[in-house]
Amino acid sequence: MTPDERESPPPGPGEQAAEGSGRKAERRGISRRTMLAGSLAALGMSALREARLAVAGLQEPADPTRVPGRPVSELGMRAPTESPRRVLRDGAQGVSLTPLQDLRGIVTPADLHFERHHAGVPAVDPERWSLLIHGMVERPRVFTLEDLKRLPSVSRLWFLECSGNGGKFYDFQADWSPQQIDGLTSTSEWTGVPLALLFREVGVDPAASWFLAEGMDAAVMARSIPLEKAHDDALIAYGQNGEAIRPEQGYPARLFLPGWEGNANVKWIRRIEVADRPFMTREETSRYTDPLADGSARQFSFVMDAKSTITFPAHPAILPDKGWWEIQGLAWSGRGRITGVEVTTDGGRSWAPARLQEPVLPRCHTRFRRLWNWRGDTALLASRATDETGYVQPTLKQLVAARGQGTQYHNNGIRVWRVQPDGRVFLEPEG
Amino acid sequence: MTPDERESPPPGPGEQAAEGSGRKAERRGISRRTMLAGSLAALGMSALREARLAVAGLQEPADPTRVPGRPVSELGMRAPTESPRRVLRDGAQGVSLTPLQDLRGIVTPADLHFERHHAGVPAVDPERWSLLIHGMVERPRVFTLEDLKRLPSVSRLWFLECSGNGGKFYDFQADWSPQQIDGLTSTSEWTGVPLALLFREVGVDPAASWFLAEGMDAAVMARSIPLEKAHDDALIAYGQNGEAIRPEQGYPARLFLPGWEGNANVKWIRRIEVADRPFMTREETSRYTDPLADGSARQFSFVMDAKSTITFPAHPAILPDKGWWEIQGLAWSGRGRITGVEVTTDGGRSWAPARLQEPVLPRCHTRFRRLWNWRGDTALLASRATDETGYVQPTLKQLVAARGQGTQYHNNGIRVWRVQPDGRVFLEPEG
Repeated sequence: MTPDERESPPPGPGEQAAEGSGRKAERRGISRRTMLAGSLAALGMSALREARLAVAGLQEPADPTRVPGRPVSELGMRAPTESPRRVLRDGAQGVSLTPLQDLRGIVTPADLHFERHHAGVPAVDPERWSLLIHGMVERPRVFTLEDLKRLPSVSRLWFLECSGNGGKFYDFQADWSPQQIDGLTSTSEWTGVPLALLFREVGVDPAASWFLAEGMDAAVMARSIPLEKAHDDALIAYGQNGEAIRPEQGYPARLFLPGWEGNANVKWIRRIEVADRPFMTREETSRYTDPLADGSARQFSFVMDAKSTITFPAHPAILPDKGWWEIQGLAWSGRGRITGVEVTTDGGRSWAPARLQEPVLPRCHTRFRRLWNWRGDTALLASRATDETGYVQPTLKQLVAARGQGTQYHNNGIRVWRVQPDGRVFLEPEG
Repeated sequence: MTPDERESPPPGPGEQAAEGSGRKAERRGISRRTMLAGSLAALGMSALREARLAVAGLQEPADPTRVPGRPVSELGMRAPTESPRRVLRDGAQGVSLTPLQDLRGIVTPADLHFERHHAGVPAVDPERWSLLIHGMVERPRVFTLEDLKRLPSVSRLWFLECSGNGGKFYDFQADWSPQQIDGLTSTSEWTGVPLALLFREVGVDPAASWFLAEGMDAAVMARSIPLEKAHDDALIAYGQNGEAIRPEQGYPARLFLPGWEGNANVKWIRRIEVADRPFMTREETSRYTDPLADGSARQFSFVMDAKSTITFPAHPAILPDKGWWEIQGLAWSGRGRITGVEVTTDGGRSWAPARLQEPVLPRCHTRFRRLWNWRGDTALLASRATDETGYVQPTLKQLVAARGQGTQYHNNGIRVWRVQPDGRVFLEPEG
């Protein structure tokens, strides 16, 4: 625990009833359970919840100390009363979003990591899989998965964000959750072999400057990557959160480019071709370029700029009572460490620093927290991240002024949440 | 990537065949797949693997680039060709062990976190659950789960180890894996409310010095904990790796005491009683004390001493070929950060420093790695951890000399793996 966390002000004495805020809230007629369960709650008890408890063998009156519990198991399962889920969008081949508002800390469970595919999740047999490295190299070579796993490995906690994350903000709805707006970002501990090591094995031509990364999905996703990223920190990754990468994250192996837009982190990678120029693939010409207001475009805009978003309170959370609440959210930057996050509760008239969860890791989600004494009136909440390069997260207005509305990529504008006097929270149109 | 990782020597040019080590190994007549699949492999292709691929809809000859992949999903699943599992021991109510030899990095997936129960996993309804804090306090109080979640929270990556971990070493078998010997340790990102904050809420009597933590399982697990641990870093934890704590880890909430023996981290916690002396429960008198050689005993031996174990190469891994291999393992200490891990390949005649995976976090698994050029003869591998207090992991002989063989708790002796000329690896009787 860091010193500043020990010094956090506790909730004020009068702010929390001795019998618990939930029960106090019920006296006011609004409780989170009531609101979330919707019409089912009118029955006095959620039928859905009853069903879940029944499935789990949870008998309501049972005293757990009177009956032996269930035995140990080879593989654990979530509690039947917990059901975090990705939200699907843009059809079956498209997108699934991480439930940011349901998560704690910085690690995203692997089965909740966002997805973005161009032709679905291919079924790849790891024993038939291989990676060819060729082009401007001395010794072209095919690496099997066993070859890669034998080589020195690296593991790091890094975020991965789709460059389209937040792009829907231009036509957002007020009742969207953090997941629905910005759920195309997740953090895992990635393990793999440094691409620099593979390039030493094959002997890259000193005149080379780019490489092509090609996937084995039905879209044959291909992107050109500057060679220097390989010398910096790129991996061929085969591990995620301690285990094998999940199929939807590129099993058995993917390119991983810390801090760079998700699309360039080619999944199910099968081929790398080294060259002295970019290849101008579909995904870096007609797509994944950022049209600017003046008619020109940003191309190869790989790095994800600093960004943050409040995950609580945010829709669909409901504050059942005024008083002390802990505002929480995530901040990250493709350029390194987050050095600060400021929080406003008055729509940007005043900002105050949030605490950052230690350790603050480069190119990794950083959780921020700030206690807030809600007085029960309308409040406008927002967060603003700064990274170690001094870059400050812009407002949406500043972003549009710089780039126009022609692109849905790299939308890292400040998001604003309106807390209503009834405790409900909605997304504001502009940060 | 840290500088020392960039400077790692690559595999020697002559050590790896261009067509991949796996294929070379098959020519020698030993491959990992053959050994692992056992008799099924005699059919030329593992029937089990075929069955798994069939279930997954993986058709062997299919070119994944020619067919659309499966759609996005609300919840991911592992690849059908991957099946990490906990190993069960001591009956259904007892123990399940984390597959250390199958994991990468430091994060343990929540469904592979070890289990140790005294009466199974109770089914607890989170809406009926509450935590009573009473005894030597000014304002006894019942906290609901909603109350706890409203309070300021902390998230940290911490290991959790059962004090019985490695205790089976005294009657080990040579063909045990790291999982079977030392699999009662795991690392998660834990989230919860500092117990110190709850104690401020209830107003602890200045004369108090201990508290009782009591669970709501059928064993009604209860332990006495010194009050100072609450002031240091103890949590009432409700989150694990980003999501709600799993049922077998104490859902909906448990006591978490960073660096202290697992048993004291009471799961399904329902009651805390503050007092001015320990309660002398069954679990701290007849159990979880360490009998010493002289007939006395260590009681309240909470802190887990520094320990490390090699996870590769270790049984059942088989080295198909001599040459460069990356020795890997985990080190941890209940007293803070690991400051160094040394590795020997000659049974302790010489030791060399391993690289430590960054960031090195206090009271957290730390992965170590060291490249090793295996010459194909018998080798004795071991690791030795040092923590920030200067404590050095002892040999098993040193441990027995100090404590006798009367206890199975707190066995942090050095483990030795014998690599045979045929590439098979077995546990040695003594470190």
